[in-house]
Amino acid sequence: MEAVKRRIKMTVAYDGSAYAGWQLQRDVASVQGVLEESLGKLVGAEVRVNGSGRTDRGVHARGQVAHADVTTRMSEKSLLMGLNATLPPDVRVLSLVKARPDFDARRSAHGKEYRYFVWNDRQILPDRRLYAAHVYGDLDLERMREGAKRFVGTHNFASFCANPHRKIGSTVRIVTAVTISKRGKEITFSVKGGGFLYKQVRSMVGFLLRIGAGEDAPEAVTELLDTAQPRTARVPSAPAQGLFLWKVWYRSVTPKEVAHEA
Amino acid sequence: MEAVKRRIKMTVAYDGSAYAGWQLQRDVASVQGVLEESLGKLVGAEVRVNGSGRTDRGVHARGQVAHADVTTRMSEKSLLMGLNATLPPDVRVLSLVKARPDFDARRSAHGKEYRYFVWNDRQILPDRRLYAAHVYGDLDLERMREGAKRFVGTHNFASFCANPHRKIGSTVRIVTAVTISKRGKEITFSVKGGGFLYKQVRSMVGFLLRIGAGEDAPEAVTELLDTAQPRTARVPSAPAQGLFLWKVWYRSVTPKEVAHEA
Repeated sequence: MEAVKRRIKMTVAYDGSAYAGWQLQRDVASVQGVLEESLGKLVGAEVRVNGSGRTDRGVHARGQVAHADVTTRMSEKSLLMGLNATLPPDVRVLSLVKARPDFDARRSAHGKEYRYFVWNDRQILPDRRLYAAHVYGDLDLERMREGAKRFVGTHNFASFCANPHRKIGSTVRIVTAVTISKRGKEITFSVKGGGFLYKQVRSMVGFLLRIGAGEDAPEAVTELLDTAQPRTARVPSAPAQGLFLWKVWYRSVTPKEVAHEA
Repeated sequence: MEAVKRRIKMTVAYDGSAYAGWQLQRDVASVQGVLEESLGKLVGAEVRVNGSGRTDRGVHARGQVAHADVTTRMSEKSLLMGLNATLPPDVRVLSLVKARPDFDARRSAHGKEYRYFVWNDRQILPDRRLYAAHVYGDLDLERMREGAKRFVGTHNFASFCANPHRKIGSTVRIVTAVTISKRGKEITFSVKGGGFLYKQVRSMVGFLLRIGAGEDAPEAVTELLDTAQPRTARVPSAPAQGLFLWKVWYRSVTPKEVAHEA
């Protein structure tokens, strides 16, 4: 069998605790870096792995998506098994399928879901300390939900992102849903939208936590969206370890309807 | 205020990943060791911390219980806050109360619950890898439940513990309940009883997993309990990282009904 050149789509879960973030950087461990190293060894050539977007230092993923072009005799199933056999245990490829040649993990994305976990008790349990933010003190769920629904829609999120004027162009984004649920001591925020600015989700959650603690009113969300000024100390960024890139949506990714789940 | 000598009862949660186990050992990190160091610094004297029992290397706890005698002016609330301010983040004291002088974390215990977590999918998610065992392949829950109920009662657990003839005396123990539940990809085993032999819970779960995979019949539990021979390779010990000491029960521990929850 000849080596076949093709584009692959990978769904990747990772524990971001030990990484400087998704993006390849010199002299530090990155998730993109370990994926490129493992995939490159498997196919015997340098490979570029392109993610749907960056995640920051300490941020996790359950469903990051990336594409890469490979020329190899290996099947998708063999690539999947080979990757998980050589990757460190804090990075797992959950699925690997052949994609259309024009599939682009970033540009083809139709939407994303992030989840943010908060442990709301005096002490955070040791086994949750790397995967949730610790907040002690009463949080009013209904107040936070009142604030959350005000984020839904097409808004200018300049007040809810970092460095909005650096070079990112428009700060207008679509948020389709923000839901908040609680189970035991753990509060889960789910934020869905068409795409997100740098630190947008952590800024939104950071402000909702202020609302939950009574330090700001739910109506202040609308006020800050309307004024659309650069972010101030009034909108803190919730800590990295509570954030998971949960899912990225696409339409018709694969050439066939066959997927090898890992 | 004079320094008051008293016995305290602590409920402790820990992530066992970085420890050689509960018990104090020379030259390695132990949970007992870090607790004795933090408590000793707070009260300005050497303190012995006595747990309800040992946990092995890599085993976790949500509700380990320990007692200690301290002579200090600090209140229970101040001791609790001081401990959590100085302990590493993978060890948390969840409550600290004054106990009766004859309270003994090990000897006064009436029962314990352990929980064991199994991630049953092709890949274990990175954020669960340190807190659950990874099992790939079909597991028949009903078969495992058939096996589990055969453990309940007073039995000789010689076939389900390590080194049964070393010096531990009787291998007869009471198991009051074994339940198995599944949520998503995660299976939770709860094992309750009056007390447990070395590696008893991990041996029980290891054998139930064999039953779930079709490698042994549920009836084999009764057969092994009845023959009560030293453990063989037929009864594997499930890996340490899936096990949590979940709860220890006592009767009338505190002199008053006042508890400072952390």
